[in-house]
Amino acid sequence: MPNKLDEARELLARANRMIANEGVLDAFGHVTMRHPTDPRRYLMSRSRAPELVEPADIHEFTLDSQIVTPIEARLYGERVIHGEIYKARPEVNAVCHHHAPSILPFCISGTELKPVYHLGATLGEKAPFWDSRDEFGDTNLIVAKPEEGASLARALGPYWMVLMRRHGATVAGTTLEELTFRTIYTARNAAMQIQAHTLGLVSPLTAVETELAGEYNLRPGPVMRAWEYWSVRLDKAEGTLHKRAAKPARRANKRSKVKRRRGR
Amino acid sequence: MPNKLDEARELLARANRMIANEGVLDAFGHVTMRHPTDPRRYLMSRSRAPELVEPADIHEFTLDSQIVTPIEARLYGERVIHGEIYKARPEVNAVCHHHAPSILPFCISGTELKPVYHLGATLGEKAPFWDSRDEFGDTNLIVAKPEEGASLARALGPYWMVLMRRHGATVAGTTLEELTFRTIYTARNAAMQIQAHTLGLVSPLTAVETELAGEYNLRPGPVMRAWEYWSVRLDKAEGTLHKRAAKPARRANKRSKVKRRRGR
Amino acid sequence: MPNKLDEARELLARANRMIANEGVLDAFGHVTMRHPTDPRRYLMSRSRAPELVEPADIHEFTLDSQIVTPIEARLYGERVIHGEIYKARPEVNAVCHHHAPSILPFCISGTELKPVYHLGATLGEKAPFWDSRDEFGDTNLIVAKPEEGASLARALGPYWMVLMRRHGATVAGTTLEELTFRTIYTARNAAMQIQAHTLGLVSPLTAVETELAGEYNLRPGPVMRAWEYWSVRLDKAEGTLHKRAAKPARRANKRSKVKRRRGR
Amino acid sequence: MPNKLDEARELLARANRMIANEGVLDAFGHVTMRHPTDPRRYLMSRSRAPELVEPADIHEFTLDSQIVTPIEARLYGERVIHGEIYKARPEVNAVCHHHAPSILPFCISGTELKPVYHLGATLGEKAPFWDSRDEFGDTNLIVAKPEEGASLARALGPYWMVLMRRHGATVAGTTLEELTFRTIYTARNAAMQIQAHTLGLVSPLTAVETELAGEYNLRPGPVMRAWEYWSVRLDKAEGTLHKRAAKPARRANKRSKVKRRRGR
Repeated sequence: MPNKLDEARELLARANRMIANEGVLDAFGHVTMRHPTDPRRYLMSRSRAPELVEPADIHEFTLDSQIVTPIEARLYGERVIHGEIYKARPEVNAVCHHHAPSILPFCISGTELKPVYHLGATLGEKAPFWDSRDEFGDTNLIVAKPEEGASLARALGPYWMVLMRRHGATVAGTTLEELTFRTIYTARNAAMQIQAHTLGLVSPLTAVETELAGEYNLRPGPVMRAWEYWSVRLDKAEGTLHKRAAKPARRANKRSKVKRRRGR
Repeated sequence: MPNKLDEARELLARANRMIANEGVLDAFGHVTMRHPTDPRRYLMSRSRAPELVEPADIHEFTLDSQIVTPIEARLYGERVIHGEIYKARPEVNAVCHHHAPSILPFCISGTELKPVYHLGATLGEKAPFWDSRDEFGDTNLIVAKPEEGASLARALGPYWMVLMRRHGATVAGTTLEELTFRTIYTARNAAMQIQAHTLGLVSPLTAVETELAGEYNLRPGPVMRAWEYWSVRLDKAEGTLHKRAAKPARRANKRSKVKRRRGR
Repeated sequence: MPNKLDEARELLARANRMIANEGVLDAFGHVTMRHPTDPRRYLMSRSRAPELVEPADIHEFTLDSQIVTPIEARLYGERVIHGEIYKARPEVNAVCHHHAPSILPFCISGTELKPVYHLGATLGEKAPFWDSRDEFGDTNLIVAKPEEGASLARALGPYWMVLMRRHGATVAGTTLEELTFRTIYTARNAAMQIQAHTLGLVSPLTAVETELAGEYNLRPGPVMRAWEYWSVRLDKAEGTLHKRAAKPARRANKRSKVKRRRGR
Repeated sequence: MPNKLDEARELLARANRMIANEGVLDAFGHVTMRHPTDPRRYLMSRSRAPELVEPADIHEFTLDSQIVTPIEARLYGERVIHGEIYKARPEVNAVCHHHAPSILPFCISGTELKPVYHLGATLGEKAPFWDSRDEFGDTNLIVAKPEEGASLARALGPYWMVLMRRHGATVAGTTLEELTFRTIYTARNAAMQIQAHTLGLVSPLTAVETELAGEYNLRPGPVMRAWEYWSVRLDKAEGTLHKRAAKPARRANKRSKVKRRRGR
């Protein structure tokens, strides 16, 4: 019988691979969650591409982003992004840092990312913009020092997503499943907003619509419906799905022709 | 020997998965059809991502969008979109509600979606634009109340597709196969229109061309040709296609070189 | 020992599936070739999506686009596109008609498609624009009548590709392999031209560059290199490729680390 | 026990296939490396699509781009791109020439490619623009003559990437792994820059940020993390990955629901 920590590792590894499988994470970026029984710790993979993360890769870290049981393998350089947000926001239980192709254009141009459809409302009313130069001047852009992580956490403030100038985004959630939902749908929202700019004037949801739609879509029903979907897509991509019993297309097609003849 | 209802369930589940496999549906959205023998009912899946829908997931609903035989599982929240359109339009036998990435930019910017090529002519002359705020003010954007569904059905009027502000689109068809065709090709048409805006002036089909091309492409021949195509693509994606007997590329290539030497 | 006609059927079916597998053809469109021993005939599939075409689907047609041995199955409606070009252009031995997503924006906006890189030079100096309304007024856009096909062939003139207003494109080649190359790389060229418009001024190859680069890339070497590539990709997609003997990534990675330690 | 040359061939074949699998190379383009023990030679495949390159396809060339042991098979026409860069830049040990869809719009429009995010900083401060007409007038665009290769190498100068007008790009690296990283992430950077242009003003990294971020990301840790990722993705695409032991999604989902009930 698996204990809570084993279960959390299994889920967190899966969330890493799911978000990568949906094209939001690539070789870089990371997903973490707060320890299921000890809120003063969080769980994070050793340094490797999220698409490859297995439960055994996941280790415990203090909120100061020190590994609890040292290992030989390399660790992620940007652990403090996670640790400092867990410190600042007790209600946050999962964090994702990424460089999604649809989000970067906003980080490059400074254009405001807005909730432009109901599923994008999970972004919340606002995604603040953090410019590392404001406090730290010219750097390698990597958020590696505790004070850099703390500065980013301050920029996030009470919101759920922060854009990082010419770098990427960091997203927070109250649960791992909510985080996964918000991470993927804010990336989709960004892609749609870019395309809408091609057509003309972009008009976002109103503040009230954003609040109501965000609330609606983050209920367990929609969140778990999406989780199941991304999870099965991952299983398909990894070749671990139990194949549906083969139903030849031919029969469905023949049936369909019969119906048409009869039905139109 | 399968009865009509079993056949309808099989087809409807397949249509859900086909449209998802073509990228028009994701974790959300739904495809329904009118009951094959009782026009006062329609068939719809329980709440789950369309790509995962199986025949056993499909249940019967009254036109007031009440499930005929209650189940434990969660139902879709936006059933009234379908029920109210079936009420208002007796000739409609299938409905799809979706949030396709190529359609949303029109729902966000308010730009008119137009038939810009012959296959897009299945859109019809016009896709009306429904703004939920006109009658209901600020909401969560979800069309869950009967009066909201009825309002959307009125906006659809005699047309075949209605755009929903910052939400998505709803498409109707006289058969499930026609609906599938219209849903996918209007999404393709939208993607082409966006790209055409990048190049310059977008000029749509004339009204007469739209009517003639729409009529031509919705005959059983083209509709079933496309259905077979999407169905086989689904079987490939699900790994249930009977693999073609292996014909090594090598031979085709060698043959081809011989031909070139001889033929040019 | 296969005869020439059987070999041609095998190759033509493969070309249909290859071009579809590269995203240029979808449920519609068709690829044909002139009969390998009788220039007064051409070979074409019965009506089905190109991705599904098998050698047994391919039949012989006269240049008036009549099937030589009548069959029960449905035929493509736009046969005359092919027949009339074979009539008008004795050096043309293969034709593809398609609605590629990257080409349609040009057919919709009227923007000129230009060779913008060396592989796009296979387009030739110019792709004329054919507007069906000029001779035929408002139609269903389908090129089904001999006079429509003849008009299109006249518009093509001595060139290798003709754009069809709000409909698609038709491409010609002296061999099936050359046609495949030109069809795919003109579609790629179109996608790049659209993206270049986003950045600013688009400047095409000069006339001399176009001629020289087109000539270079249509030699047997490049054409067969690309054919082998698309053919193997098709085999992968169809699951008929003999899998490469498994070489675990692990060893390659370990080796690589060793090298780095030593080599930098 | 494999010797250094065999190991190099294995790695180089894999790099060709990996970069192709990430969509940067198609039927054309090539990746080479300097001979592991003889700096006056380099290794390159015979002429075939990079996605198909096997260790046995790889041969030795002098820096004058002559094959050391002549073979019957066709060679790449643009060998001098590689040979002349290896001559001019002793610290360069790997070169990739490609026509990536995200890079060509810059080669067509003349817009400057800039490092717009930290991973794109591996581009370095500048990607010079080489116009073959400046020295050679109208050509077929192919860099086949030694003087053309030398001209391109001069244009590259001390930088790591050179754009080639209406043709493509050539990228250099001190190791094969660094080259792979720079090739893929400069292509990603280009795609993001194009999208950022759609939104508005594009602002790149500062010179200091570019230097620091480039340095950080080219350390062995990030480079090998990305190499492992692309390598496993290649194995997946080629069907040679040892499948993960099947863990049904169902259990992960059920577990997840339990957690939610408890945890929110």
